[in-house]
Order: sequence, then structure tokens, then C-alpha cells
Amino acid sequence: MYAVWTFCRGLYFLRSSNAFLLIAMDYNIVENIYLLAIITVLSVLQNVFLSLKVEKGCTSQTTHPAAIERLTCAYRNCMDSYPTFMGVMWCAGICLNQAPAAFSGLLYLVVRHKYLIGYMGQTSQSMPGFLFGKRILFFLVLMCLVGILNYLLMRFFGSDYKETVETFTSAASTLLLIP
Amino acid sequence: MYAVWTFCRGLYFLRSSNAFLLIAMDYNIVENIYLLAIITVLSVLQNVFLSLKVEKGCTSQTTHPAAIERLTCAYRNCMDSYPTFMGVMWCAGICLNQAPAAFSGLLYLVVRHKYLIGYMGQTSQSMPGFLFGKRILFFLVLMCLVGILNYLLMRFFGSDYKETVETFTSAASTLLLIP
Amino acid sequence: MYAVWTFCRGLYFLRSSNAFLLIAMDYNIVENIYLLAIITVLSVLQNVFLSLKVEKGCTSQTTHPAAIERLTCAYRNCMDSYPTFMGVMWCAGICLNQAPAAFSGLLYLVVRHKYLIGYMGQTSQSMPGFLFGKRILFFLVLMCLVGILNYLLMRFFGSDYKETVETFTSAASTLLLIP
Repeated sequence: MYAVWTFCRGLYFLRSSNAFLLIAMDYNIVENIYLLAIITVLSVLQNVFLSLKVEKGCTSQTTHPAAIERLTCAYRNCMDSYPTFMGVMWCAGICLNQAPAAFSGLLYLVVRHKYLIGYMGQTSQSMPGFLFGKRILFFLVLMCLVGILNYLLMRFFGSDYKETVETFTSAASTLLLIP
Repeated sequence: MYAVWTFCRGLYFLRSSNAFLLIAMDYNIVENIYLLAIITVLSVLQNVFLSLKVEKGCTSQTTHPAAIERLTCAYRNCMDSYPTFMGVMWCAGICLNQAPAAFSGLLYLVVRHKYLIGYMGQTSQSMPGFLFGKRILFFLVLMCLVGILNYLLMRFFGSDYKETVETFTSAASTLLLIP
Repeated sequence: MYAVWTFCRGLYFLRSSNAFLLIAMDYNIVENIYLLAIITVLSVLQNVFLSLKVEKGCTSQTTHPAAIERLTCAYRNCMDSYPTFMGVMWCAGICLNQAPAAFSGLLYLVVRHKYLIGYMGQTSQSMPGFLFGKRILFFLVLMCLVGILNYLLMRFFGSDYKETVETFTSAASTLLLIP
């Protein structure tokens, strides 16, 4: 009789641990992406800021027509590269680790701000398809590829280097700070 | 002997409940995003519709050159703000609750349709970087921030206000209907 | 006493299977999207390639001004349709099945490459809002709708046609190869 009671208690414990699992699963998703979500919100706020800046620059009477054209072109380059950046940042964050991906995203936002605001006079960047932040994008693509490769290795060979790779990536992401 | 049999039955029950968990997990992801996916499909269909509309407007002989330029500019503003909107809608939907996020997305699509189709004559919107639907974007950014804040509170202080916040957000999203 | 020991061993087995579940869950997410992530990385690399190509084409002295304008316009159409494509590919991949979605994505990348590189001389596509790869986008939208419909059917009527639909979709995706 005691065994049955113990068993029932164990059963109850396991069912509640399953229920906990269902709750944990819901937060598990947010836990894995909350840094990426913060960077996304920041980038959206920056988009709105840049959009208002360009709108103001184009309507003011004192701006030179050539400057307006250059500003428009720079703004277009920013907006053209935005989905590329978002796609690769989210992929890198989900496939490997969110911390270095979010850190690279933050650096990219700084580079983008410097590109558009520190742009007003130069002509060197006023061409279609100009790409800035090449090094950061390259790092994010590399993270993505390493993450997918690690998953395929784990699946087909059973070897899991995820923790090693994550530590290495976190250390490598600080190298992006070198100008 | 009876205890062992009960135990085996319990074991079987728990293993099958685990199997159910694995299936539920797969549907759990779709369950949390299906409204967002519907809005995404709608926005894609709207993109295709707007694209064909602009293509037709630019090739017809009767359209005034200035009207073509205005139409192109408005179309560009629509497309520039599209990834911003998608990013913030998905973040808000995943971090907090999909129902108000999808509702705001629907409103945004209506605003966008009105912006481009009801545009053909005005000059007020023919400047680069023009932003429409500011209020909806602001609401979605707010949802995002509240969702992340709630997760951080839950993680570091153990207090979970998610249900309260979700109810409040659902009620607040109807306020967007006020013109 | 034996029953208790068996029970304890069972308890231990189940707890370890739960721990396994938590690990499996983490990989479960990557498992469901790794093909989509590969296509995303490929599309990002293609974006960078196209961007450099357009930049080079616009700065070379030998290019005709009209050709520059056409190239810029084609590049703009590519970039305008990029977030639309990404959104619908990820939705189709998550809601239904990643294999046909990734295959369609690969075909879309080929079509896009042919559109921009095989473009240099034609004038037929030099208008704003030109849409290429309509058939692939249509197929992806259809996959999305079928996936959402299947989820709703499963939820409200309890009938699950996911496997049938997945087999059918995989077969149908090869039809996209017909020129």
C-alpha cells in the first residue's frame, strides 16, 4: 500500500513537472530571443529617427539640391540593407547564440548612425548599392554557418561542440570593436 | 505484484504523455504565431497588389509625369517601412501576445492601403522618408518593450504579470480604432 | 521493497527523459528551420554580391547613363521584393514544412540572379514595382494558407492532415522547375 502511495505521489510530481515544462517552454522561446528583440526595437526606433531626419532635411529650404540627392541616396542604402541585416542577425542568434549576435547588431546600429548622420557632406558614398558594415555582416554570416554546421555534425555524427563554439564566438565578437 | 503492474501502467501513461508533449510542442509554435502568419500573408498579397498597381500607373500613357514621380515616391515609402513594420509586429506578437499585435497589423495594412491608393493627387506625402501609421508602430514598440520587461521581471524577481498585461494590451489595442 | 526500487528507477528514467526533452526542444527549433537558415544566408550573400555589382556598374565610366538608370531600377525592384519573399518563405516553412519552402527559396534566388544579371540591356523591366518570380511567391503563399488552415482544422475539428499535405506539397514543389 505504501508503494502505491509513493507511486501516486511520484506520478503527481511528474505530471506537475510536465506542466512546468509546458510553461518553461513558453518562456524558453522568449529567453532565447529577448536580446535580439531589444536590438530589433532599437533598430526600429533608429529607423523612425532617420526617417524623420531625412524628411526634415528634404523639406528645409536651405539645403542644397545636390545635398538632398546625396542624403536620399544614403537613406536608400540604409533601408536597402536593413532586411539583410535583420535576417542574418536573427538567424545567427537562433542557430548559435543570441549574445554575440545582439552585440554585433548593436555595433551595426552605431555604424549605420555614423554612416547616415556623418554623411551630409561627402560624395564618396552617394552611389546606389553602397554597403557599409561589411565586417559585421560577414561575422554574422559566419556565426550562422557555424551554427548550422554544428547542428548537422550533432545530428549525423553525434558530436556536440555547441558550448565550445559559443564561448569562442563570444570572445571573437569583441574583435569587431577594433576600428 | 499489483503495485508493479500499476507502476508499469503509470510509466506507460507518462511516456505517452511525453510523446504527446513532443507533438504539442510542434503545434505550440504554430499556435503562438498563426494570427501573425495570417497578417503576413495578407501583407504579402497587398504588396503584390500595390506593386501591380504602381507598375500599371507608370506604364499608362495618360498619367502625368509629376504624378508618376509622386506615385513612385509613395510606393518607395511603403516599401521602406515594410521591414520595420514586420520586425516590430513579430517581436510584439512573440514577446507578449499575438492577438493585439495581429489586430494592430491589420489596422496598419488598412492605413497603408489608404495611404497609397488615396494618394494619387496629393503632394504632401511625396518626400523621401515619409512615415505613416506612427501611432500603430508606437503601440507595437510599446508592446515589445512591455513583453521584454515582463520577462526580465519574471526572471530576476519571480513576479509574473503576463496575464494582467495581456488583458490590458488587448483592451488598449481597440483604442487604435479612434481616428 | 522491490516495487519501490523499480519505481525509483522508473522515476529516474523519466526525469532523465524530461531532461532529454529540454535539450531536444532546443535542437527541435533549429531542426525545423535549418534549411530556411541556409537559404537566408545564401540570399544575404547574393544581396552583397548584387550590391557590389551595382556599385561597380554605377561607378565605371564606360556605362551609358540610361543603362545606369535601368540597373538602379532593377536593383531597387530586387530589394523591394526581398522582405516580402523572406516573410512568406519563413511563414511557409514554419507553418507547413521547411523542405519545399527552402527549395522554392532556392529557385527564387536563381530567378533573381537571372533577373538582375541578365538584365543589363533590356528595357522591358525598367519600371518601378516590377514583380518577378510571381509563380514561386504564389506557391509559398499557398503553402502558408494550407498550413494555417490545417492548424485550424486540427484545433477545431481534431482532424490532422499534416503528413498528407506535406507529402503533397513536396511533390508539388518540383512542378516549379517547369519553365
